[in-house]
Amino acid sequence: MNSDKLTQLLEQVASGALAPASAVERLKKLPYEDLGFAKVDHHRVIRQGFPEVIFGAGKSPEQIAAIGHSLHRQGSAVLVTRVDPAKAAEVQALYPELEHHPDCACLSLAAADPPRPGKGRVVVIAAGTSDLPVANEAVLTARLMGSQVETVFDVGVSGLHRLLASADALERASAFVVVAGMEGALPSVVAGMVDKPVVAVPTSVGYGTSFGGLAALLGMLNSCAPGLSVVNIDNGFGGGYLAGLIDHLE
Amino acid sequence: MNSDKLTQLLEQVASGALAPASAVERLKKLPYEDLGFAKVDHHRVIRQGFPEVIFGAGKSPEQIAAIGHSLHRQGSAVLVTRVDPAKAAEVQALYPELEHHPDCACLSLAAADPPRPGKGRVVVIAAGTSDLPVANEAVLTARLMGSQVETVFDVGVSGLHRLLASADALERASAFVVVAGMEGALPSVVAGMVDKPVVAVPTSVGYGTSFGGLAALLGMLNSCAPGLSVVNIDNGFGGGYLAGLIDHLE
Amino acid sequence: MNSDKLTQLLEQVASGALAPASAVERLKKLPYEDLGFAKVDHHRVIRQGFPEVIFGAGKSPEQIAAIGHSLHRQGSAVLVTRVDPAKAAEVQALYPELEHHPDCACLSLAAADPPRPGKGRVVVIAAGTSDLPVANEAVLTARLMGSQVETVFDVGVSGLHRLLASADALERASAFVVVAGMEGALPSVVAGMVDKPVVAVPTSVGYGTSFGGLAALLGMLNSCAPGLSVVNIDNGFGGGYLAGLIDHLE
Amino acid sequence: MNSDKLTQLLEQVASGALAPASAVERLKKLPYEDLGFAKVDHHRVIRQGFPEVIFGAGKSPEQIAAIGHSLHRQGSAVLVTRVDPAKAAEVQALYPELEHHPDCACLSLAAADPPRPGKGRVVVIAAGTSDLPVANEAVLTARLMGSQVETVFDVGVSGLHRLLASADALERASAFVVVAGMEGALPSVVAGMVDKPVVAVPTSVGYGTSFGGLAALLGMLNSCAPGLSVVNIDNGFGGGYLAGLIDHLE
Amino acid sequence: MNSDKLTQLLEQVASGALAPASAVERLKKLPYEDLGFAKVDHHRVIRQGFPEVIFGAGKSPEQIAAIGHSLHRQGSAVLVTRVDPAKAAEVQALYPELEHHPDCACLSLAAADPPRPGKGRVVVIAAGTSDLPVANEAVLTARLMGSQVETVFDVGVSGLHRLLASADALERASAFVVVAGMEGALPSVVAGMVDKPVVAVPTSVGYGTSFGGLAALLGMLNSCAPGLSVVNIDNGFGGGYLAGLIDHLE
Amino acid sequence: MNSDKLTQLLEQVASGALAPASAVERLKKLPYEDLGFAKVDHHRVIRQGFPEVIFGAGKSPEQIAAIGHSLHRQGSAVLVTRVDPAKAAEVQALYPELEHHPDCACLSLAAADPPRPGKGRVVVIAAGTSDLPVANEAVLTARLMGSQVETVFDVGVSGLHRLLASADALERASAFVVVAGMEGALPSVVAGMVDKPVVAVPTSVGYGTSFGGLAALLGMLNSCAPGLSVVNIDNGFGGGYLAGLIDHLE
Amino acid sequence: MNSDKLTQLLEQVASGALAPASAVERLKKLPYEDLGFAKVDHHRVIRQGFPEVIFGAGKSPEQIAAIGHSLHRQGSAVLVTRVDPAKAAEVQALYPELEHHPDCACLSLAAADPPRPGKGRVVVIAAGTSDLPVANEAVLTARLMGSQVETVFDVGVSGLHRLLASADALERASAFVVVAGMEGALPSVVAGMVDKPVVAVPTSVGYGTSFGGLAALLGMLNSCAPGLSVVNIDNGFGGGYLAGLIDHLE
Amino acid sequence: MNSDKLTQLLEQVASGALAPASAVERLKKLPYEDLGFAKVDHHRVIRQGFPEVIFGAGKSPEQIAAIGHSLHRQGSAVLVTRVDPAKAAEVQALYPELEHHPDCACLSLAAADPPRPGKGRVVVIAAGTSDLPVANEAVLTARLMGSQVETVFDVGVSGLHRLLASADALERASAFVVVAGMEGALPSVVAGMVDKPVVAVPTSVGYGTSFGGLAALLGMLNSCAPGLSVVNIDNGFGGGYLAGLIDHLE
Repeated sequence: MNSDKLTQLLEQVASGALAPASAVERLKKLPYEDLGFAKVDHHRVIRQGFPEVIFGAGKSPEQIAAIGHSLHRQGSAVLVTRVDPAKAAEVQALYPELEHHPDCACLSLAAADPPRPGKGRVVVIAAGTSDLPVANEAVLTARLMGSQVETVFDVGVSGLHRLLASADALERASAFVVVAGMEGALPSVVAGMVDKPVVAVPTSVGYGTSFGGLAALLGMLNSCAPGLSVVNIDNGFGGGYLAGLIDHLE
Repeated sequence: MNSDKLTQLLEQVASGALAPASAVERLKKLPYEDLGFAKVDHHRVIRQGFPEVIFGAGKSPEQIAAIGHSLHRQGSAVLVTRVDPAKAAEVQALYPELEHHPDCACLSLAAADPPRPGKGRVVVIAAGTSDLPVANEAVLTARLMGSQVETVFDVGVSGLHRLLASADALERASAFVVVAGMEGALPSVVAGMVDKPVVAVPTSVGYGTSFGGLAALLGMLNSCAPGLSVVNIDNGFGGGYLAGLIDHLE
Repeated sequence: MNSDKLTQLLEQVASGALAPASAVERLKKLPYEDLGFAKVDHHRVIRQGFPEVIFGAGKSPEQIAAIGHSLHRQGSAVLVTRVDPAKAAEVQALYPELEHHPDCACLSLAAADPPRPGKGRVVVIAAGTSDLPVANEAVLTARLMGSQVETVFDVGVSGLHRLLASADALERASAFVVVAGMEGALPSVVAGMVDKPVVAVPTSVGYGTSFGGLAALLGMLNSCAPGLSVVNIDNGFGGGYLAGLIDHLE
Repeated sequence: MNSDKLTQLLEQVASGALAPASAVERLKKLPYEDLGFAKVDHHRVIRQGFPEVIFGAGKSPEQIAAIGHSLHRQGSAVLVTRVDPAKAAEVQALYPELEHHPDCACLSLAAADPPRPGKGRVVVIAAGTSDLPVANEAVLTARLMGSQVETVFDVGVSGLHRLLASADALERASAFVVVAGMEGALPSVVAGMVDKPVVAVPTSVGYGTSFGGLAALLGMLNSCAPGLSVVNIDNGFGGGYLAGLIDHLE
Repeated sequence: MNSDKLTQLLEQVASGALAPASAVERLKKLPYEDLGFAKVDHHRVIRQGFPEVIFGAGKSPEQIAAIGHSLHRQGSAVLVTRVDPAKAAEVQALYPELEHHPDCACLSLAAADPPRPGKGRVVVIAAGTSDLPVANEAVLTARLMGSQVETVFDVGVSGLHRLLASADALERASAFVVVAGMEGALPSVVAGMVDKPVVAVPTSVGYGTSFGGLAALLGMLNSCAPGLSVVNIDNGFGGGYLAGLIDHLE
Repeated sequence: MNSDKLTQLLEQVASGALAPASAVERLKKLPYEDLGFAKVDHHRVIRQGFPEVIFGAGKSPEQIAAIGHSLHRQGSAVLVTRVDPAKAAEVQALYPELEHHPDCACLSLAAADPPRPGKGRVVVIAAGTSDLPVANEAVLTARLMGSQVETVFDVGVSGLHRLLASADALERASAFVVVAGMEGALPSVVAGMVDKPVVAVPTSVGYGTSFGGLAALLGMLNSCAPGLSVVNIDNGFGGGYLAGLIDHLE
Repeated sequence: MNSDKLTQLLEQVASGALAPASAVERLKKLPYEDLGFAKVDHHRVIRQGFPEVIFGAGKSPEQIAAIGHSLHRQGSAVLVTRVDPAKAAEVQALYPELEHHPDCACLSLAAADPPRPGKGRVVVIAAGTSDLPVANEAVLTARLMGSQVETVFDVGVSGLHRLLASADALERASAFVVVAGMEGALPSVVAGMVDKPVVAVPTSVGYGTSFGGLAALLGMLNSCAPGLSVVNIDNGFGGGYLAGLIDHLE
Repeated sequence: MNSDKLTQLLEQVASGALAPASAVERLKKLPYEDLGFAKVDHHRVIRQGFPEVIFGAGKSPEQIAAIGHSLHRQGSAVLVTRVDPAKAAEVQALYPELEHHPDCACLSLAAADPPRPGKGRVVVIAAGTSDLPVANEAVLTARLMGSQVETVFDVGVSGLHRLLASADALERASAFVVVAGMEGALPSVVAGMVDKPVVAVPTSVGYGTSFGGLAALLGMLNSCAPGLSVVNIDNGFGGGYLAGLIDHLE
């Protein structure tokens, strides 16, 4: 029930076409729909074209295709994460418009209307080659939101000069996504160098006491560098989305 | 905004005293209040007199007394948990009607109207003497809700005959609260004997690998006995509340 | 040894056919059988037709079929959980009466006598599509017990209006099973809205710091909403059983 | 070595006053100072007046006062966190300009030049009364950075209508800090309602399986709501700093 | 209900003084008492004089004294663990017969009848000085059971020659209790040297990654030496009891 | 170097055939061999025929066969654990005398000389069907050591009457091995009933919060029943070995 | 930017060919390159020929070959860890000079110039057969660095005499790598015997409470033997590298 | 029994003064003493004057003084760690020669003979002011061993220029001890810069997810920088000892 429908209902009451008691009954059932519409109303301009993500793991190709079609009809970009090559092919057979990104196990479709561009650049930094699938998921997400994205890959803690070589990119950044596994120290180092928000994404890259990314996560949460926050292990989408959101703030 | 007020508003619309657009504006701001009232409406009979709990740890005596007064004015019973003797005395100085229960570190005040009695009995079973503060919190909670409570205390896994000696009580039970620390096996054994819901409350009693109640909690969550569910470690209130709620179902 | 046999034995003693000393000897050996019969005696009416669950993982098709037959002969419904499609087919080859439920990896057979109906409805709520196998196991369990079950699926924390759209179902509920993975916040939100017992079932859906459902479990155990209790991760059977049990309380 | 000094040095080389080899020697020793100045250069406008935090726990009053004086002389605001009342009094005896904030165990001193105002408002939301010390630390931090801050306190998951009553504040927000202990579900719910970045701050409020804030942290990291990121448990400074930083982005 | 009483009851039935139906009623109520007596019957000889332990932590001096008197009246030795000096004095004021053992925070009273001696010796080995309170608890326990105890203290992994210097003691052992904190390697080394059961008792001695004894516990559970088993962290009583039990097997 | 060889060496010194300095050199190199022989000397009678276990996981069939042959030549029984059917077949191809036990994934070969019989019986109790592989490993181990073994299988906490039905077996026991997964309560219950050592073996049977047997392990370590100790998760060999060792004590 | 280039740049400034302001601009961009060259400068002699490791897991054969070629061109030895046999063959097809070491899943190529020999020997000790892949990785690493390596394999805590039999090797050692899984006690025992640095490498060998090597790791970190330090679980490379580094210190 | 005594014994055998059988008897009792002497023999030169550490926590002043005197009589330096000021005063009252180091809670006494100097310098680096007690323990340890120690304190990851300012010290180092709490990234950064062994010491400095130093420990164990190894949390002694040992290698 949106504003129009609510006005319509109250006009029916005003006109005597609907008894107050009946209106009470209908209104009691719909409080959350009111909330829902209000949210859409306020946010429509900004959110238009932002991707709604479909967590692909544990969904059938049919489910993914159906949800994707439904989202796209509403004008949203479509982003499906965590689809292996076989499932990607099955989904594409059902929904050929979806583009496959094997470098991050995603499928995507841009929104019909091109998204509003961001105000700066999202810079995605990754510590090692094995972190790239997660980093690429962040890149794809921010691009679908309309952000310009630059990447600085393969910059371990012991190779910081490579990071500095990209100084121009760093200066144009409105937000950073820093992706690292192992000991996860890179986001701390980056946040100590820059003055823009750093979204740290721990990855499950590592072995032994990396405990599937826990070591990297803890390293990031305990960073003494301010301006740094953390998302779930391997959550490239979450990192890219937040950076894209910051890049679109006015 | 409750039903009466909503009816009033719509009658104003019907009578022309309020323009539909103004009513839309007021309604858009209040969706959750609508929800709130709806809930109160449906649940009033059962919930009347049920205690609203005040988690006493980390609150000042003044805060506790103020919240208590506010709850009591609304017709609710008052239950304050986790107040040590010194704080209890300070709160009582501000709010002398509150009764102190040193055996479970609680303060309480019954609702003005006596609560609706339950349909059976809540039986609270505790494994050891050290578990009694938690068990007594459950007892107090269920009693404030209007339930009759029987207790079977000091019944370790190696003293089950004492449990059976209370067979009459067991048969009259509508719900069980079973409180245990250490290895936490008692709820499993009880749930294997009875056919009523068993709310298991792990306690932090133990040492070493009890890990503050974690061992007991895991034991209860992994029980093969059906009809058993678990609340947080040392959460006597939660156990008593759920058992009291089941005892009041119609 | 049931009541009849015990009476018989004592009558033999009364008649002199059995010496007291011999009776002592026989009684000393059978204390638990006494207990067992007592339990059956008290609980027979309620328990009739309730499913005895067979944990299918790690059992051979032959074992499953044999236990199933044995349970069914005693008048119980049969419920086998955690059977993948291949094993399900093998079991069905041995026991064709068992019905396969691929949506929750179960096999089932209703009791010969239809179970006593519950007094209300069990409402099973699931947060996401990936939680459905666990939710469906709860649905199947409660139905086998004779409860009417309604489902409200795909209701994440950010889509609560869909939950409210099922308000009629909520009002008829005697107990709730709320199934959620990831952060596991849904049961807290539901328990804040309703006044019936909420059995929270965490699922292993998620990645990274979900730690196989641990995050959801902790979220549920730490809920501030009263009336909520928790069962093991992915334990749809446990949730459905407890809700069905509450639905059958008199 | 700042830009001026570097220019000076190179001009000495250009004029022949300094041999290239000597300049090489001096430059080789100072790479990090170059880096340091570069950072200051790029970031000066934005960072001016931003507080440098002093983690007060484990530092002596003398150490705190000395570091504070040093920071203030450089034009920075001063923020000391985690000082209990006794230590606060000792520090104030040494440095009377510092203001004591007993509601968050902090000491502070604004920068000499008033900080540049932010572009919107930082909205700090707290779930319960016990979470207020952490929330107030976030409020103080963002205010020292020049942000306007509004607070929405005591908004548990079961009292969302109070959050909505502050709808006007929500709409003016440029960033949110959401502080919660226990199950930590509030940030997920907020992030599902708004379209601005949400910095989630888990607190150590709770008992039993809250594990000192771990349950809340995991709940936040596993949130399905996009636009949400997390800082360390009880890190009100970190939450306020990041929100203030976002509020000052251009 | 013991054998005598059961015989009495059945003789009443045999004599007609008690109707079989009444006897059935009485027997149905007492199955566990039957079990209890049976156990006492079978085990009486061995168990006579064995200490029943009272976990002193969290019990009042009055409770401890009362339970102690009750146990002693039944002919049992009395052992109270985990009583600090202040509480020990209070308990002794109420029950002066109890002997205080400040080296292991215990109170004890031997059984009236001297316990049956064991068949060999219990050898209690401790790695470091800080482990002695736990080791002494094991010593006291085994002595109360009637075992001869020898001790080999202060034998770290890097001082094994001191262990060998006690070779005579080792050869007379019927069972070993090996107490160690830190890395907990000593029981593995001992079990590799001897051919009698080794009960390993991890202690909470250590810091950092000892995690309150967890490191020692894991070291012991993962030992490749056969003949070794483990009890809870700091559970000197459990170690001494099991070794004493083995020492008394026939 | 055994006693004979040492005597021989010293006689060479005595006879002048070996210079003292050369003997010093040889003795300095062999201190541990001295220790080794001492151990063999003292323990030979008891240990003869005891199985030396070969942990089969991660060893090649060739390695297993070679170690097995070597052990058997020394008069030891051979026990290989954790060999899947395929590897078992490969090993048997190389060493046909080994017997395959598919019910516990073991291979075995009795010692040439029949082992000395134990003094009582080892009773192995298992909670559920899924625990049988671990239980059978314990059975096999104790039998290879010469113990008579009785089994009481499929005795969950809610079916204790079945345990009692085996009362005769219980009474003849010299030691118990109790195997359980899930909540691991069975060993506590058994240890509360019997007066012989109980070796508890947690299994990895379970799901969710069983955490691969951790819940069962913690339940056993925190048991309040004395006389109970614990070995590693799934360590059937360790349980059987310790029980067999106790059964052979004199 | 190395020393030469920096000199060149400054000479351009001195000659007037480059304006100081332009030089400032170039120097501001390159501080880390300065740092980089400095490091190479200081360390060149020692580091020449040391292997740069390529973590092979999660890299494609093409990536591995490319990085390997690049390293070798710079004069470094090449070491690729964690390559299964299939991937090893693929890499060798691309880069036939690489030698495959199936006993530790590595590929390697010695530096063109033979590395400087160490001053003593690296002794690599392994507890069990299953620990050999990790131990062999350490051996290979230290050998590529130019160290002489001796191995003492299959030396469990209960077979220390085999360690002593290698006393000559022990005495020539400049550093030890001690590799162990399970309870991880071996490094403690070795460090108690020797006076050279012991690098402890925990392995994931074990089951149940070994928790993938965590038990061994904790055992090593809590060792009371001084001179012992620890690297990550299964990190044979790290152990061998550190020992090789110590062996090359002057 | 040292070499001299063994030679003496064998000469007695050679001369007939001692029968071989008696010598066998004496040798069988002393294998570990042989081992012990061997160790002392080989290591005497290097170890002379090295401190034997006394872990002061949980020892009485009398115990500490007694052990200290005993060590000093053997020519060892004495180092007592973890003594709070009150206990330190009590120990000094008994043993006035001990020097108190309040900056690291230690007592010490140099060996009578000055220790052999090391070959370079031990450089101890600490990240923050709160890490100094641990760092100072490392400094004191290495100094007692005879090493020259330089310190670089207060060098967080975001202040690396301060580290470089100490470049001269870095170049003279033979080994590094790097102490850090929080996220523990500093040792990784240092190890990426230097080519000498880095002993990383995690500290318990931090809050929330630092989990008492676990985050720092995991960060260090997962470091990708080679040449780095780790000791227990807060183990300044261990770090200083290992660095001092490396500094004394020949």
